[in-house]
Amino acid sequence: MSTIDERLQELGLVLPGPYPPHDPLDAIVVLGDRARTSGQLPRDHEGKLVHPGTLGAGIGVDEGAEAARWCALNALSVLRAGLGSLDRIARVLTVLGFVACTHAFEQQPAVVDGASRLLYDVFGDAGRHTRSAIGVAALPRGGAVEIEVEVALRAS
Amino acid sequence: MSTIDERLQELGLVLPGPYPPHDPLDAIVVLGDRARTSGQLPRDHEGKLVHPGTLGAGIGVDEGAEAARWCALNALSVLRAGLGSLDRIARVLTVLGFVACTHAFEQQPAVVDGASRLLYDVFGDAGRHTRSAIGVAALPRGGAVEIEVEVALRAS
Amino acid sequence: MSTIDERLQELGLVLPGPYPPHDPLDAIVVLGDRARTSGQLPRDHEGKLVHPGTLGAGIGVDEGAEAARWCALNALSVLRAGLGSLDRIARVLTVLGFVACTHAFEQQPAVVDGASRLLYDVFGDAGRHTRSAIGVAALPRGGAVEIEVEVALRAS
Repeated sequence: MSTIDERLQELGLVLPGPYPPHDPLDAIVVLGDRARTSGQLPRDHEGKLVHPGTLGAGIGVDEGAEAARWCALNALSVLRAGLGSLDRIARVLTVLGFVACTHAFEQQPAVVDGASRLLYDVFGDAGRHTRSAIGVAALPRGGAVEIEVEVALRAS
Repeated sequence: MSTIDERLQELGLVLPGPYPPHDPLDAIVVLGDRARTSGQLPRDHEGKLVHPGTLGAGIGVDEGAEAARWCALNALSVLRAGLGSLDRIARVLTVLGFVACTHAFEQQPAVVDGASRLLYDVFGDAGRHTRSAIGVAALPRGGAVEIEVEVALRAS
Repeated sequence: MSTIDERLQELGLVLPGPYPPHDPLDAIVVLGDRARTSGQLPRDHEGKLVHPGTLGAGIGVDEGAEAARWCALNALSVLRAGLGSLDRIARVLTVLGFVACTHAFEQQPAVVDGASRLLYDVFGDAGRHTRSAIGVAALPRGGAVEIEVEVALRAS
C-alpha cells in the first residue's frame, strides 16, 4: 500500500469513482513534471452530486465546503487512476476553484477551503498550493462547486 | 503543406483570422515545450462574433456548440501564426472553456464540446485534453463562449 | 536596489502588502522556470479593497481598471516577497482576469487592461502576456476584479 493510500486510510477517506469524462476528454494530462486534472464536480460514491445548487440561494457555506471537499476527493481519484499511485505526487501546485453563486455572495474562499483543507490533510505541507476562488453563474449539471488541480510529480 | 494543414483541408476547414489581441497582449506565449493562447472568442471569417448572447436566454446549445467550434478554429489560427506551423504541436493539453449563461443553465459541457470535438477531429488522439466548462456572467463583446488552449510542442 | 525596484520608483509605484493568503494556501508557487500567484484582489496600502462592487451596476470601467491595476500591484508584491527579487522574472506569461459584472456588461477587456498596462509599464516588452478576461457572478469579499499571474523565471 502506498504512503498516501495509508494516509487516506488513517483519515478514514475512501476515494469516489474515478469518474472519467466523456470523449474526447481526458481525466488528467501529464507533461514533464506536471499533471493537471479536468474540472472535478462533487460526485459521491454513487456518482451523484453532493449539495447541487447555488451558494447564496439555498446552499449554505458549510454545504458548499462539503461539496468542495468531494471535488478534491474526485481529483485525487482521477490522479491515482491516471498516475498509478498518488505517491508520484511531489506537491500540489494550484487549485482553480469555481463556485456557483448569486451576485451578492462573497464567501467563495470559505467554500473552496473544503477542497484546500482536504489536500493539506492528505499531503501535509506538500498539500499547500496557490488558489483562486471564483464565483460563477452556473456549473455543469447544476453542481455547486468545480475545481481543477495541478500537481508536481517526483522525478521517476 | 503541413500535415495538419492537409488535415484541415480534408475536413473542409479554413481558419479565420488570425485576430491578434490589442497591446500589450500576445495571442500566444511559448515557454519550453508548452504554448498557451489568449482567450479566443468565436470570430468568423469577417471577424464578427458567431451567435453572441447568453446560453439559456436566447442562445441554444447547438448554437453555443457552434460558437465554441469557432473559438477552437481561432485558437488554431493564432497558434499557426505564432508557431509557424501547426505541425509543431505534439498534443493538446488543456482547454479552459467559459460559457456566458443564466444561473439555471446546466449544459456547459455540451457547449464546449463544440471546441473539444473540433480539436479531436483535427489532431486525432493527440487532440484529447483535460477541460473545465464554466458558466459565467458575461464575456467580452457579448460573446457566448471563450476558450483558452494549452498545447505541448514537439522537441525541435 | 534591483533594476525592477528602480523602475517601480521611476514610475512612482509603491507595492502594497504583501498580503499572504490564509493557510493552507501559498501566495506564489514556483516550479522549474515558472512561478504563479494565487488570485489577487485589489487591496490598497491599508489592505482595503479598491472600488468593490459589480461592473455594470455601480462600478464604472475606469474604476474597474483602477481596481485591476491594484490587483497587478498586489501580484508584484507577492512575487517580490516569494522570489526575493522581481529581477528574477524573465517575462510575464499569462494573466487570468475575472471581473464581477452584470450579464449585460461587455467591457471586461477594458477593465483587465488596468492590470495588463501596469505589467507592461514595469517590465516593458517582457511584460507582454496572453490573457483571458472573464465576467463572473461575484468575487471574494465583494471585490470587483481578481487576477492570477504566471511568470517565467531567469535561469539562476
